[in-house]
Amino acid sequence: MQLTRLYHFSASHRLHSRELSEEANQELYGKCNNPYGHGHNYEVEVTVSGPVDSRTGRVVDLHDLDALVKGHVTEPFDHRNLNEEVAEFQQLVPTTENLGIIIDKRLRASWDSAFPQRTPALERVRIYETARNIFEV
Amino acid sequence: MQLTRLYHFSASHRLHSRELSEEANQELYGKCNNPYGHGHNYEVEVTVSGPVDSRTGRVVDLHDLDALVKGHVTEPFDHRNLNEEVAEFQQLVPTTENLGIIIDKRLRASWDSAFPQRTPALERVRIYETARNIFEV
Amino acid sequence: MQLTRLYHFSASHRLHSRELSEEANQELYGKCNNPYGHGHNYEVEVTVSGPVDSRTGRVVDLHDLDALVKGHVTEPFDHRNLNEEVAEFQQLVPTTENLGIIIDKRLRASWDSAFPQRTPALERVRIYETARNIFEV
Amino acid sequence: MQLTRLYHFSASHRLHSRELSEEANQELYGKCNNPYGHGHNYEVEVTVSGPVDSRTGRVVDLHDLDALVKGHVTEPFDHRNLNEEVAEFQQLVPTTENLGIIIDKRLRASWDSAFPQRTPALERVRIYETARNIFEV
Amino acid sequence: MQLTRLYHFSASHRLHSRELSEEANQELYGKCNNPYGHGHNYEVEVTVSGPVDSRTGRVVDLHDLDALVKGHVTEPFDHRNLNEEVAEFQQLVPTTENLGIIIDKRLRASWDSAFPQRTPALERVRIYETARNIFEV
Amino acid sequence: MQLTRLYHFSASHRLHSRELSEEANQELYGKCNNPYGHGHNYEVEVTVSGPVDSRTGRVVDLHDLDALVKGHVTEPFDHRNLNEEVAEFQQLVPTTENLGIIIDKRLRASWDSAFPQRTPALERVRIYETARNIFEV
Repeated sequence: MQLTRLYHFSASHRLHSRELSEEANQELYGKCNNPYGHGHNYEVEVTVSGPVDSRTGRVVDLHDLDALVKGHVTEPFDHRNLNEEVAEFQQLVPTTENLGIIIDKRLRASWDSAFPQRTPALERVRIYETARNIFEV
Repeated sequence: MQLTRLYHFSASHRLHSRELSEEANQELYGKCNNPYGHGHNYEVEVTVSGPVDSRTGRVVDLHDLDALVKGHVTEPFDHRNLNEEVAEFQQLVPTTENLGIIIDKRLRASWDSAFPQRTPALERVRIYETARNIFEV
Repeated sequence: MQLTRLYHFSASHRLHSRELSEEANQELYGKCNNPYGHGHNYEVEVTVSGPVDSRTGRVVDLHDLDALVKGHVTEPFDHRNLNEEVAEFQQLVPTTENLGIIIDKRLRASWDSAFPQRTPALERVRIYETARNIFEV
Repeated sequence: MQLTRLYHFSASHRLHSRELSEEANQELYGKCNNPYGHGHNYEVEVTVSGPVDSRTGRVVDLHDLDALVKGHVTEPFDHRNLNEEVAEFQQLVPTTENLGIIIDKRLRASWDSAFPQRTPALERVRIYETARNIFEV
Repeated sequence: MQLTRLYHFSASHRLHSRELSEEANQELYGKCNNPYGHGHNYEVEVTVSGPVDSRTGRVVDLHDLDALVKGHVTEPFDHRNLNEEVAEFQQLVPTTENLGIIIDKRLRASWDSAFPQRTPALERVRIYETARNIFEV
Repeated sequence: MQLTRLYHFSASHRLHSRELSEEANQELYGKCNNPYGHGHNYEVEVTVSGPVDSRTGRVVDLHDLDALVKGHVTEPFDHRNLNEEVAEFQQLVPTTENLGIIIDKRLRASWDSAFPQRTPALERVRIYETARNIFEV
């Protein structure tokens, strides 16, 4: 059984790679390279999988899952500038690809202490940048 | 080729496990344990897979699929109280996890007589409890 | 300037009029008359209107609006059986028409104490029973 | 006859009023006051009204409407920081209320030269900040 | 009280005005003038208004409304070529503006016989050609 | 890392198999067999997968992907009659199953020249005929 639960946050970012010249950045990222930044409403789908507990009929305690995602993702990312206020993006360009990878890493790093019985498993992280672009780690 | 088709029903339920005390039920299910019940608009995605018939260009006859889902799922569940009016939930807590499992079981039990050529296959049942919580069997 | 804000709750109900015979109820409400009830995910749109405060750029303080709607609507209605647990529906059939009227009445009754400066005004209450049926008071 | 057409842009902003102290800004805008800003995917609905041309069956030439909205709204706002890169928000706090007012003003200021026959009329501007908050001028 | 109910149909059409030259048609309608036609999934919102019946809690009997819309709109338009198979479009260009006007006319012409008590009133017809273009009569 | 990007087109078609009699076509396809055709707004999801470029943070250059899909799918299909104007449907019944297969074939045939580094891979094509019917190749 898989459960997919939706979370939201709004953040700003600027796409700019330190390894590239100004011209190459401008050509590669276009208006996403705008030095003043821009922003999005991100939607994150977290999918967990595991057996259904026969006593409770549940695959996961939603309070535990919500606490984990809030603590490591929505609270530190919501209404933030990703480049300036999220440690991982000091080095990494905050494309939605990298944002998905960081969310996935953060959840996996704290998964075992949040779910010490090792169930459910973290199956998949998917992130919507806009209604047209969806990324899956 | 896979075809996913959407179905809807509205039902009420109460989450309460006979194996737990009143206090444990209250703590586990919170307001979903409310003795008077509550309800949802459920959306069910049924995904079938198989080869495309070269003569008709179809993977499944939609009338057959609709008749099967209507007879075993939407007709007996729509505008019903799941705890009181669906046989399987006399024993089982009607969480959406268990609801997905029961829908999947019901479809599989009657699949072979509905599709005697054994095509298409029932690939997946997914159920939306709300826009935020999606379950997949 | 108008602001429309969305709220959600899930509840169960049964449509049955005390002024009608069993047969008339059955004919009028069909499967909505099912004695065990059924349920929906309701979405409520609350629209307020007023001038934009030139200092803050806001038409309403969202914390105030959320507190009002939570206290009088979503908290007492969410995960409830409307017939059994909401006082107004002891007498009134809990159709979505009447549900909209009651939500509108509850918000209007407490509006002046929530917004003592008499701004913003409560412009409109709209309620979605399903994606197909929308009611506006 | 009314036609409503949807447009999109993504931008970042920070809510901060120069007329208020740091503490008052923080209390009023909460995390929207974050000095590094945040962002949204905005959706703008532009509604025009007028008679249907009996020869063409059209209420407006969509190329004209698109050119107007692109030139005055989506091009200058998309992938921009509203506080830093849009002239009107040098003075005005870029709440979505004010953003709606500015979009409405910009369209009205250039309406007559775009539609010299004075038809259609600009009926209404509506802006979605998130799926939960909708503003109408 | 207003009730808005959604209906769907899929149809094909070609935009071509008999009062214009081939070149003018091509310039005016662009690829919508393609002689082989194209098509859409249309969504129609029918809004009725009236008092809520105190005995039933209803503003309209949905079976009556559905029968009216099915008989005069969805049945004759669904899976049809509007130019070839709907009488009104022998003369009229089947733009979505005109489609909305025809739906409105058809419903009004049969309204009084469907609702002889003259309640509810037909408040509004709205039609979605695509998610971006919405027309209201 | 997977990226799914959405594309749209509107087209008309008629379902009719040359290998079947008129009666068999009518029985099989029902109103989709209407000789004058009908139409839909199709939504196409193209999913690509590959490693994230560590320098750019991107899994694919969206301009390249858009150019490919536009050139081989949306441009030749949008506002077209599939039976009359798309070569593959001279022989093949333009069911949405076959439409998905043709889109998939067209993208795969030109993939290597569009992405000569052989990254990203074309993971999946999914097509929505209506909100209720989704096909995946």
